[in-house]
Amino acid sequence: MLMSAADYRDSLRRFKPRVFVNGERIDSVADAPQLSPGINAIGVSYDFALKSEHLPLMTARQRTSGKTVNRMLHINDTSTDLLYKLEAVRLMCRESGCAQRYLAHDALNAIFQATTRIDANHGTDYHARFLNYLHRVQEEDLTLGIAMTDAKGDRSRKPGAQDNPDVYVHIKERRKDGIVIRGTKAIVTSAPYVHEFLVMPCRTMTPDDKDFAVCCAVPVDAEGVTIAARPAGRPGESAAKFSARYGQSTGVVMFDDVFVPWDNVFLASECEEGGYLTTSYATHHRHSCIGARAGFGDLLIGTGALMIEANGLDTDRHAHVRDAMVELIKIVEGFFACGVAASVYGIKDESATMMPDAVFSNIGKLLLATQIYDMHRLAHYVSGGLIVALPGPDEDHNPETAASLSAVLAGRPDIPSSQRMEVARLMEDLTASHQGSWYSLISLHGGGSPEAMKREIWRNYPVGEKRELVEQLLDRGVLADGQRVSKQPGRCCVTGCEVPELPGAKEAAE
Amino acid sequence: MLMSAADYRDSLRRFKPRVFVNGERIDSVADAPQLSPGINAIGVSYDFALKSEHLPLMTARQRTSGKTVNRMLHINDTSTDLLYKLEAVRLMCRESGCAQRYLAHDALNAIFQATTRIDANHGTDYHARFLNYLHRVQEEDLTLGIAMTDAKGDRSRKPGAQDNPDVYVHIKERRKDGIVIRGTKAIVTSAPYVHEFLVMPCRTMTPDDKDFAVCCAVPVDAEGVTIAARPAGRPGESAAKFSARYGQSTGVVMFDDVFVPWDNVFLASECEEGGYLTTSYATHHRHSCIGARAGFGDLLIGTGALMIEANGLDTDRHAHVRDAMVELIKIVEGFFACGVAASVYGIKDESATMMPDAVFSNIGKLLLATQIYDMHRLAHYVSGGLIVALPGPDEDHNPETAASLSAVLAGRPDIPSSQRMEVARLMEDLTASHQGSWYSLISLHGGGSPEAMKREIWRNYPVGEKRELVEQLLDRGVLADGQRVSKQPGRCCVTGCEVPELPGAKEAAE
Amino acid sequence: MLMSAADYRDSLRRFKPRVFVNGERIDSVADAPQLSPGINAIGVSYDFALKSEHLPLMTARQRTSGKTVNRMLHINDTSTDLLYKLEAVRLMCRESGCAQRYLAHDALNAIFQATTRIDANHGTDYHARFLNYLHRVQEEDLTLGIAMTDAKGDRSRKPGAQDNPDVYVHIKERRKDGIVIRGTKAIVTSAPYVHEFLVMPCRTMTPDDKDFAVCCAVPVDAEGVTIAARPAGRPGESAAKFSARYGQSTGVVMFDDVFVPWDNVFLASECEEGGYLTTSYATHHRHSCIGARAGFGDLLIGTGALMIEANGLDTDRHAHVRDAMVELIKIVEGFFACGVAASVYGIKDESATMMPDAVFSNIGKLLLATQIYDMHRLAHYVSGGLIVALPGPDEDHNPETAASLSAVLAGRPDIPSSQRMEVARLMEDLTASHQGSWYSLISLHGGGSPEAMKREIWRNYPVGEKRELVEQLLDRGVLADGQRVSKQPGRCCVTGCEVPELPGAKEAAE
Amino acid sequence: MLMSAADYRDSLRRFKPRVFVNGERIDSVADAPQLSPGINAIGVSYDFALKSEHLPLMTARQRTSGKTVNRMLHINDTSTDLLYKLEAVRLMCRESGCAQRYLAHDALNAIFQATTRIDANHGTDYHARFLNYLHRVQEEDLTLGIAMTDAKGDRSRKPGAQDNPDVYVHIKERRKDGIVIRGTKAIVTSAPYVHEFLVMPCRTMTPDDKDFAVCCAVPVDAEGVTIAARPAGRPGESAAKFSARYGQSTGVVMFDDVFVPWDNVFLASECEEGGYLTTSYATHHRHSCIGARAGFGDLLIGTGALMIEANGLDTDRHAHVRDAMVELIKIVEGFFACGVAASVYGIKDESATMMPDAVFSNIGKLLLATQIYDMHRLAHYVSGGLIVALPGPDEDHNPETAASLSAVLAGRPDIPSSQRMEVARLMEDLTASHQGSWYSLISLHGGGSPEAMKREIWRNYPVGEKRELVEQLLDRGVLADGQRVSKQPGRCCVTGCEVPELPGAKEAAE
Repeated sequence: MLMSAADYRDSLRRFKPRVFVNGERIDSVADAPQLSPGINAIGVSYDFALKSEHLPLMTARQRTSGKTVNRMLHINDTSTDLLYKLEAVRLMCRESGCAQRYLAHDALNAIFQATTRIDANHGTDYHARFLNYLHRVQEEDLTLGIAMTDAKGDRSRKPGAQDNPDVYVHIKERRKDGIVIRGTKAIVTSAPYVHEFLVMPCRTMTPDDKDFAVCCAVPVDAEGVTIAARPAGRPGESAAKFSARYGQSTGVVMFDDVFVPWDNVFLASECEEGGYLTTSYATHHRHSCIGARAGFGDLLIGTGALMIEANGLDTDRHAHVRDAMVELIKIVEGFFACGVAASVYGIKDESATMMPDAVFSNIGKLLLATQIYDMHRLAHYVSGGLIVALPGPDEDHNPETAASLSAVLAGRPDIPSSQRMEVARLMEDLTASHQGSWYSLISLHGGGSPEAMKREIWRNYPVGEKRELVEQLLDRGVLADGQRVSKQPGRCCVTGCEVPELPGAKEAAE
Repeated sequence: MLMSAADYRDSLRRFKPRVFVNGERIDSVADAPQLSPGINAIGVSYDFALKSEHLPLMTARQRTSGKTVNRMLHINDTSTDLLYKLEAVRLMCRESGCAQRYLAHDALNAIFQATTRIDANHGTDYHARFLNYLHRVQEEDLTLGIAMTDAKGDRSRKPGAQDNPDVYVHIKERRKDGIVIRGTKAIVTSAPYVHEFLVMPCRTMTPDDKDFAVCCAVPVDAEGVTIAARPAGRPGESAAKFSARYGQSTGVVMFDDVFVPWDNVFLASECEEGGYLTTSYATHHRHSCIGARAGFGDLLIGTGALMIEANGLDTDRHAHVRDAMVELIKIVEGFFACGVAASVYGIKDESATMMPDAVFSNIGKLLLATQIYDMHRLAHYVSGGLIVALPGPDEDHNPETAASLSAVLAGRPDIPSSQRMEVARLMEDLTASHQGSWYSLISLHGGGSPEAMKREIWRNYPVGEKRELVEQLLDRGVLADGQRVSKQPGRCCVTGCEVPELPGAKEAAE
Repeated sequence: MLMSAADYRDSLRRFKPRVFVNGERIDSVADAPQLSPGINAIGVSYDFALKSEHLPLMTARQRTSGKTVNRMLHINDTSTDLLYKLEAVRLMCRESGCAQRYLAHDALNAIFQATTRIDANHGTDYHARFLNYLHRVQEEDLTLGIAMTDAKGDRSRKPGAQDNPDVYVHIKERRKDGIVIRGTKAIVTSAPYVHEFLVMPCRTMTPDDKDFAVCCAVPVDAEGVTIAARPAGRPGESAAKFSARYGQSTGVVMFDDVFVPWDNVFLASECEEGGYLTTSYATHHRHSCIGARAGFGDLLIGTGALMIEANGLDTDRHAHVRDAMVELIKIVEGFFACGVAASVYGIKDESATMMPDAVFSNIGKLLLATQIYDMHRLAHYVSGGLIVALPGPDEDHNPETAASLSAVLAGRPDIPSSQRMEVARLMEDLTASHQGSWYSLISLHGGGSPEAMKREIWRNYPVGEKRELVEQLLDRGVLADGQRVSKQPGRCCVTGCEVPELPGAKEAAE
Repeated sequence: MLMSAADYRDSLRRFKPRVFVNGERIDSVADAPQLSPGINAIGVSYDFALKSEHLPLMTARQRTSGKTVNRMLHINDTSTDLLYKLEAVRLMCRESGCAQRYLAHDALNAIFQATTRIDANHGTDYHARFLNYLHRVQEEDLTLGIAMTDAKGDRSRKPGAQDNPDVYVHIKERRKDGIVIRGTKAIVTSAPYVHEFLVMPCRTMTPDDKDFAVCCAVPVDAEGVTIAARPAGRPGESAAKFSARYGQSTGVVMFDDVFVPWDNVFLASECEEGGYLTTSYATHHRHSCIGARAGFGDLLIGTGALMIEANGLDTDRHAHVRDAMVELIKIVEGFFACGVAASVYGIKDESATMMPDAVFSNIGKLLLATQIYDMHRLAHYVSGGLIVALPGPDEDHNPETAASLSAVLAGRPDIPSSQRMEVARLMEDLTASHQGSWYSLISLHGGGSPEAMKREIWRNYPVGEKRELVEQLLDRGVLADGQRVSKQPGRCCVTGCEVPELPGAKEAAE
């Protein structure tokens, strides 16, 4: 059931999506060199799930079906699931830069939660539909693209007030057998090489805009779907030590009157639950982003260590270089810790899905969003200026210069010049190429911009409880209505949830 | 067995320590107003352990005796112990500013570990002695002062090379029945109002300095002990809304040929294990500090919220005030998360004591050490300038000004002037008094200065493993000797330890 | 005409203000120990103006009278005036912590400008009145308190909409011979020991609130004036190495139907020009603050250097200590440079007064406002934890402990313990006492809070010009209306003003 | 005599350098598309010097010849020269990204100073030679490449101790008519399209390494010179809105037994003065870098403003976007102010050359070096995620997608989609392409890495004077030997130099 990376690539041949990359129509996504690094990166999520040493992290047992599935398609039941997902994402991204596939996890969990709530509120049967869909996706081990960020048009107006309604995806027609959707999603990661899209609303809609509250699944090659994408990574560039192998494509996806049967529709105009869906997705996704960027951090730390060595520097003697490495580690593990805490203090909603804690998830994402630039700075600091001054790889084969350059461009005597240049190009690729900047931008704006996280932190933090604490110290103690108060027996000072027992507790109590 | 705060205060009457505060001899520590805030703060650790709602956090079952003890005296068996200790410290410190007593926890755990190792290496029986001591301390529910930071003298010289050897505590004489120690510990928190001191080495000693490697227990009123201390908090000051009630005293403790029977000696010249003792203590302590300062953060957040209200500001309309609150929350929960992660990834040493992970513990402490100043800045930001301009509390009772001042110094109409002034004075007390600065300084330098944490982070971080990861990506893969490599099945990407299962995992697997 | 510090203290005896400090009525301000450090600090501005070596910085020739006056009372004609004022403020504050008197400078310059503008707009004769006043103040070499920050009441309402109108100072009655003012100014620096107050509006008033737009001079002991103040510094405290000598008092000043003759009224309901007055004052004042806090920075740098020495550390060998010193220097000189740039690019308004550039003045103030906390952190970093653990000065004279403590509390052998303790107490006084916190708070909120500076930066920055620059690069070039465009021949890229010639240019051209 | 950009390009045809770009031999540098953006950027320094509106900034009168020369080739006589150079560099770089030619200025000034000193110390006649050279360069209005950063080899060894001596340029042979040099300079900005190189030592040499202390001028096409360079900018890329027009090439320059006649030799083994040359160059250069990066900042600010507009955002309503712009401005003008202060407090050395103050120059460079990453972050923050997700420019001409994309990718209704995409691509080009990263890296490491600046700040800062100030406050006053003390009449508190008069002072005094 679980596919390998090779299986996944083959499986793409079953689809005939309408894809353009840099203005050129792609005949076979599976064979397009422009997209190969993206397919490779997703492939890591498949191959790792087949490696015995990674099974605990990379696979999980789906409660509703009893089957073992790829963790990127699993609905979380426990805090352990959250922690393992976090580690699994880090594990994949430290190999592939960005494994992309965790977006499917984030969306599936959110839809699982939202459909439960819609049914409870409206007596509908979305959840059963979704469960069928989920089980099929798990069974076929699919890759899903998350089509969420609308083109948005004029940001000072709501969706329904736009001159051109197609700047948001919306329900154009409701038929007996399904709906017809129309509009544009502007930033869809992995768009060309997924099996299906999950279309999701990118904001809470008001009743006036209820046609814009829509969530459904659409095959990548459904009639009416067009994808205009960028190449994934830096395919074919000899200087791209990393991103010629692994990369990510983002695409604009246009839905031109696409029909979706009811079986694949999971939300259609239920505005309030659409808001829950969006928020819930955001929380899952920000938690995943923490793992992803920590994995990228591992790459920077390792490359930094190699670069220092190749330059002939010594972290014992050159304290300022060691300091920069420690600063880099502090940033990476500092935000990763927020992911761990969000797992530990996860909470279950009424669908029995375990959600990461919203405060810690948003703080972790906020920390990585802004500090990714510091990570680049520190990686550059320990690397030295050579990484943007080194002659290109074609120079390595120039008989008139190669020998001379090789003779003088080594650092430490026992590390050949070629090895130093290779590490320098890797660092350039990771941090000083357009692909390097992609990691920054996607960290800053992906899963919502910093302002969105700040609002979520404020909305979820138990300020009222702290206020009450201080009032009691002042011997007062009136608490304003409507503020969340949480200090109860054995409760966490932050989240208000019960402080969980961690592993080993029982054993010790015996 | 567990005492109340009142019992604790009473119990101090059994001791007759030689204590000076501001040059004045204290007759009865329990009754000295200068020390009362310190005794109150420690008292919180007693009273909270008797409250049913706090039992899970504040008490624990000691494995070696089977008895229930105050968590501040407990040896950790599990990750849960670490997490509960972290939460317990936060819980106490959000009430008392700094509960101080967690230092005993940190030292007891480290001595437990070190004595196990010494016995294994040297065939001694320190551990059995210590176990007797530990059980007595737990049984009597004592408060211990940690006498660690030596006066140090000329910092460019080692202990044995000082002009005056008394700048470090050392073994002056070894007798059949015990040892005689001599020297000065310069910064001992809570010194006047503890029952006993645990004397510990503050650095790794070389064989030349083996007399300086000494760890032992000494009653506070042992012959030859003199304490010169500061008042705790701001006793008796009417403007001190918080620190007239709760505070901390630090003292210089001079050991003038103090005899210690062998039963109370836990390390005597075993230099290498002394180093382990020091490092182990530091790790436990930095982990505890995270909880402590998060509790202080709770006080700032709550006071900030009250101050904003009293000023008539609204976090919805005044986004820059809300932003500052979110920034404050981000800092506090950001470093607290490191404490959680250090608990989750705790590791057991050969004594079966669960240690918090060193990387996360040191990062958390480093983050709080430097960001405590930002916390003050943000607390001041949301408070406005009034907090250092408000007339003193004696003005409140001045018939010639009180009514006029009261009439004009209110902010929001429904919050009386007196209430606004009370909150303003609380904020001043917490952040703009010498007591407020104590929190900064102790955060920065307590438990080791930032440079020490940076070294520990570097020493413990698996840089080699990341380096190898990148080499494999470059299709090389030679790993330098001696570097820690950890990527094994289901291992954490940071710590290399097995990713633990969190609560609920089993239930879900059924 | 220029007084000495002693003359100034004497001159205060001519006034009988109604002053309360901590609820106690002060008989003679000149003789009150509680206020002595404040009087000493102001005294520096007098004595320095008499020292021949400081004449160029501390005095200037008043254009309108031809007389030489204290620079703190001078109206700026040139960029040199601005630069010399900046340096003069730094010079005084590095001696006195905060010389306070520069506030008079800031207000006098702003009123000079505003009265010129009012007369031009309204045909009034305020400027002539003010000139008389100015010349008298200069002639008598007075100290003026700036009564600007109103009590404000409910911040969500404008002045005229408050339940109690006295939370803002306002014109209660207009008579033939003058006006009657009423209300409260909440934070007036130096209030008890000035000769006169300059009452100024703290915000731009709307026509509805025109009675609140008032600027006038009031003797400190005018009938109806009451001052409730804090002590200046830490008078009489033996541990206060610095602030027992120099300090600042802030007071609440209540105006209870105070009559002001027209000769002393400089603005009465001219709302628009009141806004100009406020903004202009703010710009002058923020520029002065830069010099003041740089002077405080000098004290921290010098004390840090002494502390490092006394601890026996060496900045060559202990790179992390040197790094912290460099960071401290970087902060101090970084914001000071903004003051220099604001001087260089000063602009003249229609009154021929030279104004510091608003962008650089506000950036400099913003940098110091937020980084003062970092300055404390760095000062603490280089000092070590001793500064909050050292026994108090009374312990120095305790025959039972003094000798022992002295023997062990030294650092470097050639620096006696007493000297180390003195420096430690100085550092504690400057950074870890309530006086230390006063410097932080006043830096953060004095002269407007950071949000106010950000708005001024945005309002004054030539964003439109940069936008046009980029449009031209894109071969477009339409510039939106109303945006300031400045790129003209030889113009500064920031301010749009002509790039000035600096000294020596002419000489070289000959 | 002053050339235009077109003249400059033509003049390159007179030279036949041996240049390889990406392994390919360049026949005619002037015509090579790979180098065209670099030649364009240098061209700005020529064309601007011919525009009447820029004459004051862009040209100056050379004291030693009396002739008007391009400011990039001028020796500074006055503070005004420094300020005008700073502004001129900013002016050129806000057009061209990086004008590069200021490196010539920095080197010429330093050699002017060093040759004066060598002659004074050694009785040589280097200065006269150099003056001839300088006048010729000015007369011919040449562009010079600064060949300073050696390949360095094993960084733990000095030049003379390297296995391969060619990792540093050195004197291989001394002949009657000149010297023969050999070795490699690794990072030479503009290398392919200069007229001549100025070879300079990159560090202070010890007497053992005196052959490595060499400074001389070498024509770009001298026998034995080989250049392996990168393309300048992103030539020919349609998405490169900026860097297809303007860019910079860096090259490795190999000197294979190149003969240099004595007339072009300006330092040959005078080690001590070689150190002075290096430091002096570094100070001039860091001062220039401040102007350069401020110009780049202007581009970011302008592009950010356009991007915000195109996205339909409003800085009044979206405070967090305005805040980010203000933060960006604060950074740019904050470090620019250091350049202004360094000009104001410039000092003359014995050659009568005006040097920018070292403390302010180094602080400014340090601030820009680390904050360039924050500038990118802020530029990205205000731009939104679109800038790395937008389909490439080839998609604009794809008949199957162009119309649809154009219809949905607009933001504000009155700004066409094409215009928004153009700005987005410009922002991507400036900050998220390899060219964007070049600005970061070159800011961080160019002109010396942050550690070098920190050392210079510490070396030049009058710490001793501040220490003395504090000692006097403590009523002591012994000053350690060898520490710079500066407080003299009317002296600057930072630099110790006389506080200069700024323009207008004299006029006002009349």
